[in-house]
Amino acid sequence: NRTIVTFALTFLTSSQAILIVWSKRAGKYEYSVTTANFLVETLKCFLSLAALARTWKNEGVTEDNRLSTTINEVSVYPIPAALYLVKNLLQYYIFAYVDAPGYQILKNLNIISTGVLYRMILKRKLSEIQWAAFILLCAGCTTAQLNPSSDHVLQTPFQGWMMAIVMALLSGFAGVYTEAIMKKRPSRNINVQNFWLYVFGMAFNAVAILIQDFDAVMNKGFFHGYSFVTVLMILNHALSGLAVSMVMKYADNIVKVYSTSVAMLLTAVVAVFLFGFHLSLAFFLGTTVVSVSVYLHSAGKPPR
Amino acid sequence: NRTIVTFALTFLTSSQAILIVWSKRAGKYEYSVTTANFLVETLKCFLSLAALARTWKNEGVTEDNRLSTTINEVSVYPIPAALYLVKNLLQYYIFAYVDAPGYQILKNLNIISTGVLYRMILKRKLSEIQWAAFILLCAGCTTAQLNPSSDHVLQTPFQGWMMAIVMALLSGFAGVYTEAIMKKRPSRNINVQNFWLYVFGMAFNAVAILIQDFDAVMNKGFFHGYSFVTVLMILNHALSGLAVSMVMKYADNIVKVYSTSVAMLLTAVVAVFLFGFHLSLAFFLGTTVVSVSVYLHSAGKPPR
Repeated sequence: NRTIVTFALTFLTSSQAILIVWSKRAGKYEYSVTTANFLVETLKCFLSLAALARTWKNEGVTEDNRLSTTINEVSVYPIPAALYLVKNLLQYYIFAYVDAPGYQILKNLNIISTGVLYRMILKRKLSEIQWAAFILLCAGCTTAQLNPSSDHVLQTPFQGWMMAIVMALLSGFAGVYTEAIMKKRPSRNINVQNFWLYVFGMAFNAVAILIQDFDAVMNKGFFHGYSFVTVLMILNHALSGLAVSMVMKYADNIVKVYSTSVAMLLTAVVAVFLFGFHLSLAFFLGTTVVSVSVYLHSAGKPPR
Repeated sequence: NRTIVTFALTFLTSSQAILIVWSKRAGKYEYSVTTANFLVETLKCFLSLAALARTWKNEGVTEDNRLSTTINEVSVYPIPAALYLVKNLLQYYIFAYVDAPGYQILKNLNIISTGVLYRMILKRKLSEIQWAAFILLCAGCTTAQLNPSSDHVLQTPFQGWMMAIVMALLSGFAGVYTEAIMKKRPSRNINVQNFWLYVFGMAFNAVAILIQDFDAVMNKGFFHGYSFVTVLMILNHALSGLAVSMVMKYADNIVKVYSTSVAMLLTAVVAVFLFGFHLSLAFFLGTTVVSVSVYLHSAGKPPR
């Protein structure tokens, strides 16, 4: 189960990146990202409800799979969505200090922040070798993404670094909170947990539409700029969101970070075949380091 | 003792690289490399004899420190010098296929070949984690040396790759043979072993002068183009050669590879202060990977 979910997440994440490259190649994408995100949350919510309806039909309504909830249970569910909202808003401001390729490099700080918060908040232990593997994962992913202009990142002003660190922490917190929520009551049906998580996701994304794209939606309409690829991307995002939920419930944030990192490398290899991209020496070196990191993560498992 | 020798080798190797940068900055160096190598061997031979004379005076001549030897003992001593001669001759031909920065990158194959031959010929064990660390050392050193034109290396023709691999194997064999020689009879005085090693070094370097620089030496003289920096470089080479011998006798090839790799990184940092070079993002990433590798090498020591 854990392995299937991990592979599904890796596959969905890399096909997502391929879709992004594809849609960019087809021409600049002009749909508003906030409306697409809202639809992704809505679709996940609907899929969770559909799965739940089947469970009720087969197993009947039990304490673990009923939709109604308590204030006590539901009160932590808005936290991840709220953190992502703040992070996505910050994303618009960080580009005043860093260019897009530089931001891709800085995003690898997520790996470190996730590891640190996983240790501090979830109190889960990583062995020393696993910590070493985690540092290597971050260094390897960054190496694989190096390009001749990457050195600009070192000239990022202090505010840019601070914002990148804050964003990495927000995204790390969101991941760690989601895991805490999913695991707090292991017997609770995952689709109920998903439903509540995504309801708040819908609410916070509605807020994001109001803040960022209210005028555009009002003047050009909600679905302005949508294409076939956009629809595929929304479907893909929804499925990978559900895969992330499963990874959080049945595995953990560390597995998630590894699978999205491996997905990043797979994407680059697939892009070579699909779009004729070429691979750099830095990519091979980064891939080597990430592979060793994956090996060390399992070799370094602390004895139970 | 082991630690002091390791630090000495690291220090001497990095100051050597600094001297090379210095002499290049002062203007293209015009002395012939083969005559300088011959003088290095001669100096090492002389220093070994001087140390030996002191030992004889203090401890008298014993079975372990007498200079005379048997055919059986001395027969393996020419091997490392012969391997280095072939390797240095190949070095002139590889530049038909690879440029100088590309050659610097390919030289990191030495790390892998040394590890493999160390395992195969000396039959010494490395744990799985130490192998992982060794692959990381190679990847990290290469990453640290990346520059915008490094991707050319991937276009190296097949012959270039073959020559680079053969050179890496020759240099790996030479290192592994030297260690086998130094350790075959642990009680044998190191200065006697050095003496015989360097006598053959002198002989093979004399051959190299005849092959490569006979005309230049005849027309312009043996010491043509020598400067103060050249003298410093010869001194430094001689001292680091002695340090390598000690590392081979009291430690091993793996320690040697680690200490020269760390020296390479130290050199780059020192060059920032001395010559105002700037460090790239790739350098930081490579240094991170090498540091983790050093940690893993000691964390992964197999239990005795």
